[in-house]
Amino acid sequence: MIIILKPKANEEKVRDLIKRLERMELSINYSEGATTTVIGLIGDTSAIDMEILRAHEIVADVKRITEPYKAANRKFHPDDTIIEVAGHKIGQGYFNVFAGPCSVESEEQIIAVAEAVKKSGAGFLRGGAFKPRTSPYSFQGLKEDGLKLLLKAKKATGMPIITEIMSELHLALFEDVDLIQVGARNMQNFTLLKELGRTRKPIFLKRGLSSTMEEFFMSAEYIMAEGNRNVILCERGIRTFEPSIRNNLDISAIPIVKRFSHLPIVIDPSHAAGTAWMVEPLSKAAIAAGADGLMIEVHNNPKEALSDGAQSLDFDEFSHVMEIIKERIAFEGKVMG
Amino acid sequence: MIIILKPKANEEKVRDLIKRLERMELSINYSEGATTTVIGLIGDTSAIDMEILRAHEIVADVKRITEPYKAANRKFHPDDTIIEVAGHKIGQGYFNVFAGPCSVESEEQIIAVAEAVKKSGAGFLRGGAFKPRTSPYSFQGLKEDGLKLLLKAKKATGMPIITEIMSELHLALFEDVDLIQVGARNMQNFTLLKELGRTRKPIFLKRGLSSTMEEFFMSAEYIMAEGNRNVILCERGIRTFEPSIRNNLDISAIPIVKRFSHLPIVIDPSHAAGTAWMVEPLSKAAIAAGADGLMIEVHNNPKEALSDGAQSLDFDEFSHVMEIIKERIAFEGKVMG
Amino acid sequence: MIIILKPKANEEKVRDLIKRLERMELSINYSEGATTTVIGLIGDTSAIDMEILRAHEIVADVKRITEPYKAANRKFHPDDTIIEVAGHKIGQGYFNVFAGPCSVESEEQIIAVAEAVKKSGAGFLRGGAFKPRTSPYSFQGLKEDGLKLLLKAKKATGMPIITEIMSELHLALFEDVDLIQVGARNMQNFTLLKELGRTRKPIFLKRGLSSTMEEFFMSAEYIMAEGNRNVILCERGIRTFEPSIRNNLDISAIPIVKRFSHLPIVIDPSHAAGTAWMVEPLSKAAIAAGADGLMIEVHNNPKEALSDGAQSLDFDEFSHVMEIIKERIAFEGKVMG
Amino acid sequence: MIIILKPKANEEKVRDLIKRLERMELSINYSEGATTTVIGLIGDTSAIDMEILRAHEIVADVKRITEPYKAANRKFHPDDTIIEVAGHKIGQGYFNVFAGPCSVESEEQIIAVAEAVKKSGAGFLRGGAFKPRTSPYSFQGLKEDGLKLLLKAKKATGMPIITEIMSELHLALFEDVDLIQVGARNMQNFTLLKELGRTRKPIFLKRGLSSTMEEFFMSAEYIMAEGNRNVILCERGIRTFEPSIRNNLDISAIPIVKRFSHLPIVIDPSHAAGTAWMVEPLSKAAIAAGADGLMIEVHNNPKEALSDGAQSLDFDEFSHVMEIIKERIAFEGKVMG
Repeated sequence: MIIILKPKANEEKVRDLIKRLERMELSINYSEGATTTVIGLIGDTSAIDMEILRAHEIVADVKRITEPYKAANRKFHPDDTIIEVAGHKIGQGYFNVFAGPCSVESEEQIIAVAEAVKKSGAGFLRGGAFKPRTSPYSFQGLKEDGLKLLLKAKKATGMPIITEIMSELHLALFEDVDLIQVGARNMQNFTLLKELGRTRKPIFLKRGLSSTMEEFFMSAEYIMAEGNRNVILCERGIRTFEPSIRNNLDISAIPIVKRFSHLPIVIDPSHAAGTAWMVEPLSKAAIAAGADGLMIEVHNNPKEALSDGAQSLDFDEFSHVMEIIKERIAFEGKVMG
Repeated sequence: MIIILKPKANEEKVRDLIKRLERMELSINYSEGATTTVIGLIGDTSAIDMEILRAHEIVADVKRITEPYKAANRKFHPDDTIIEVAGHKIGQGYFNVFAGPCSVESEEQIIAVAEAVKKSGAGFLRGGAFKPRTSPYSFQGLKEDGLKLLLKAKKATGMPIITEIMSELHLALFEDVDLIQVGARNMQNFTLLKELGRTRKPIFLKRGLSSTMEEFFMSAEYIMAEGNRNVILCERGIRTFEPSIRNNLDISAIPIVKRFSHLPIVIDPSHAAGTAWMVEPLSKAAIAAGADGLMIEVHNNPKEALSDGAQSLDFDEFSHVMEIIKERIAFEGKVMG
Repeated sequence: MIIILKPKANEEKVRDLIKRLERMELSINYSEGATTTVIGLIGDTSAIDMEILRAHEIVADVKRITEPYKAANRKFHPDDTIIEVAGHKIGQGYFNVFAGPCSVESEEQIIAVAEAVKKSGAGFLRGGAFKPRTSPYSFQGLKEDGLKLLLKAKKATGMPIITEIMSELHLALFEDVDLIQVGARNMQNFTLLKELGRTRKPIFLKRGLSSTMEEFFMSAEYIMAEGNRNVILCERGIRTFEPSIRNNLDISAIPIVKRFSHLPIVIDPSHAAGTAWMVEPLSKAAIAAGADGLMIEVHNNPKEALSDGAQSLDFDEFSHVMEIIKERIAFEGKVMG
Repeated sequence: MIIILKPKANEEKVRDLIKRLERMELSINYSEGATTTVIGLIGDTSAIDMEILRAHEIVADVKRITEPYKAANRKFHPDDTIIEVAGHKIGQGYFNVFAGPCSVESEEQIIAVAEAVKKSGAGFLRGGAFKPRTSPYSFQGLKEDGLKLLLKAKKATGMPIITEIMSELHLALFEDVDLIQVGARNMQNFTLLKELGRTRKPIFLKRGLSSTMEEFFMSAEYIMAEGNRNVILCERGIRTFEPSIRNNLDISAIPIVKRFSHLPIVIDPSHAAGTAWMVEPLSKAAIAAGADGLMIEVHNNPKEALSDGAQSLDFDEFSHVMEIIKERIAFEGKVMG
């Protein structure tokens, strides 16, 4: 970190600032020039609050040289992380498809979907039991009953399951869930992240609608800083000015994750676009850009779905998309995880 | 709500759709034209998921005629709501200032700030005990100890206190807190909102960084639908493309709240701009646009603050801003609440 | 400007970079530290392309210490600029209202509007002759004929006129126009800006929908660098994610202009919100935040307007808003310019 | 187009509105229901200003059923358009690479780049002669001299050239330019678009930084409505809240163009990301999503480039990316155009 001092800063205050920094166990590199004086900080600056420093009366500006995340940072972990979940490998050359309905609706439905997506080649069954909905009057999911139905589908098909947690109060209910999803709206629910960090459950962390990539990495860091290294990142579209689609898939998130982090990155084209017809081209783009997996909404009867029907594929459409996915991950030299 | 059918929609499917809608206890108004057929729905459509309807194979589009929020909607509550908290009135002609440090740091500090802001005319002491921070390595607040210090400051000065809750797990700790704040990052933490809705505590709900006004109203609705009508809205800046300030204060939020809702709306110019020098002009703008209050960060020593120092006013600056506020609310015909 | 070098930068390349910088007539301040080496540049760095420098193989980062705009910068022009147009003063304590229809439609219409807005106290008549419309099939304005009608209205009422230019090809037609408007879509039409810079006409420069404040100042700089110092800035709403209003008025633009520039800043609440009912509260906010004027759309018959009817006030509404404006600028200690 | 009337609209005013609509040569389909009355319009509604209609006192809302663009609309032109430029085909199965420096700097430079990119397989030489720069003090391009150098490079290598026009005043200078680029900042410079529509030159239209897809199509429509059908669209990144990259490539633009328009769509990964290392993954994503070409910045010495150095590839990097491109377009079943 570099602190650029204001011209003609009061000497006593400079000494005072340096003393405070040294107390934080940082080495100081003081470079005084004719017009510009710079204090370089060596050591662990991750706890320093740049805003506070910037507000200091003798400071002109503060610049980070290194990223504020450590556990999630590729610099300190040059190799790709592979997360193992229920016998599946996720990351590096292992590609995974997480498929299923937005909401679990009934035993019949979830088992039918599970069987269909398994047959097409998906590795994980997704399905919402606790559903975050903008309106309190919309269907909120089957909750505990939904979890039970997912477990039944798991038992029936052998597929590991992934489902969203909405509160640390529910953690006990998720014991048999293979992969716990944190939704976009809870990406900065830090109490929840810390609780999940204290488990050793694999966490599937969705990027907030308007979160910067650094904020995204910092949320992963919240989980990892508590000791849980099993974090999978998921980009699901960002909020922009464009009115014709629900969100804009941020394809740049993939190369940014690959360069700055070692964690796997999965793309959710269903939520990104909000329409079923866009799932195929966005999936192709994601694979080509280097994604480690895709989360795709599939429904036995999208026209009748209780939530997010507009973006779900039916079984035939999903089967078609899976053929394309398999062909393309082979082209990329990857295998199903 | 109006459903516009696709041209030449299959008649049987139209009848089927109408039956499904009738089962939801809605009256149907079917208008068939030469080229366009429209189904009007009369009744409580707040539970209808427009996305599902839009995905229906015979539906071209769906349009809401009325807002999806009810309890928060001015239509069903034409008069301004006045929230009473610890003897203070908030809303309508009653203006309130919520002032204090971003974080509670020590007994000495919080009492000093409380006395200073009270002397200048603030009605509520704000102070963060549980702090949502982007980085897990940043100061996270004094937590329970911070709450205790706030209560000491309340006892010492008689000022009611407002502080942020980060988890429904902490609710018991907030029993003596006068006004519970839900932060921007938790605006769509629906589990938390529902729990707060089951209390009768006054809630101070901050708008999410990128939340639409409708989403903001819907989050208020989550609390109100559970029976707690004591909701105060707070606009604190939205995330845009502008890099020179932290957030852009959305001044339009004030007239929109006044037109579509009956709830009080408070502006937080400190977080909106992220710099102390902008607090005064933004406060003036907020009062003129019709805000019901201001939340302002004040610190005994902003240069040394442990968080958000750059945006805090010192005692003299706050005293100066309070003089301006008093003069201007008088001009608007309002009184301190 | 400060150039932060990469650790262990090749010495020869450092010398080479310094030589190149010296050739640009900049003084160099070289501060070598144990881990961080910084080159400070003193002199006119406005022509330096930071991106190029950043791409240099030995450079870690580049930071501007001063803003890249000079003529528009308050640092080099501490006093507020007052622009004089047709006997009116704009800026500092002089407040101005620019009112009229979005489009000039007929002689009868424009004269009726001119008389009405003059009577209510507006100083300038606005009216579009050349209209930038998103669709080539929408009404494009009466063009030259529209300009003639504006001049007739000017003659009939004595009001100076302001109207938008869409191409440097039309410059000759604008000879008798008092104040030339550059629309938001042309804020970065640099050829047009340069041509206008070569005139001495007062220019009313609207901020682009998604332009940063620095880009806004740089566009003013394009005009001023050619010698024309008569630039009035106008904020008219920015594009965000909010769907319920056309644009979001960026109220922060006012204090930013006041702090970093000396040019007058006018607010256009009509375009910012896109609805007539929001003009009054946004006007109040703009005056309180320190705006130097308001541009308001007024139409003799908003319901029948050929463009932008939804945001126009009728004569009675405008007269009412003008009463409020007069009362409030008096409160601010300002006078009509 | 559908006009939804307010409940209990005055009958006379309804008749009056219908008469006005009939005068626009539209067929009217009037559907009166118990609570909702809807007017359907059949015919060419592209000239109707929805904002005006919405402002009408008896109108509740107005909805377009069809897109406002016609010439650019796939509905009226189901087959992909292939644009032929200097013997190259662009669109459908024909993929093209437009490569070269951001700015033409010297004869030596532009010929060296032309030869290098030709050797690697690029079809078109790009190079800026007139450069739109945010700052008036930045290098503005060699202008006419730059055009002459491009023509020399064309003569030397036989490569067709593409370069940006910044004003209709310069049109005569572009006679020998094969493909005229309209930059993002001029996407809504409607005077320029119309002038280009009057030529038969192929136009390469870049999307504005914050333009919606509909606005993008409407700008193409401006050119096409004048008779020039030779329009190539180019997505080059949109402006969002993300600070770590220059712009976010909007990958969704590709499937949207393919679904709603018949025009070719080219991606500019260099400007989208603003850094050279991201060109390869974004190019892969663009090809997979169905793009018809790529515009890539290549410089003989990116470290010394006068503009946009940070995002340029050197010859070796470009040669490497071209190998990847060739392999991938073959996989997609496309050929170089």
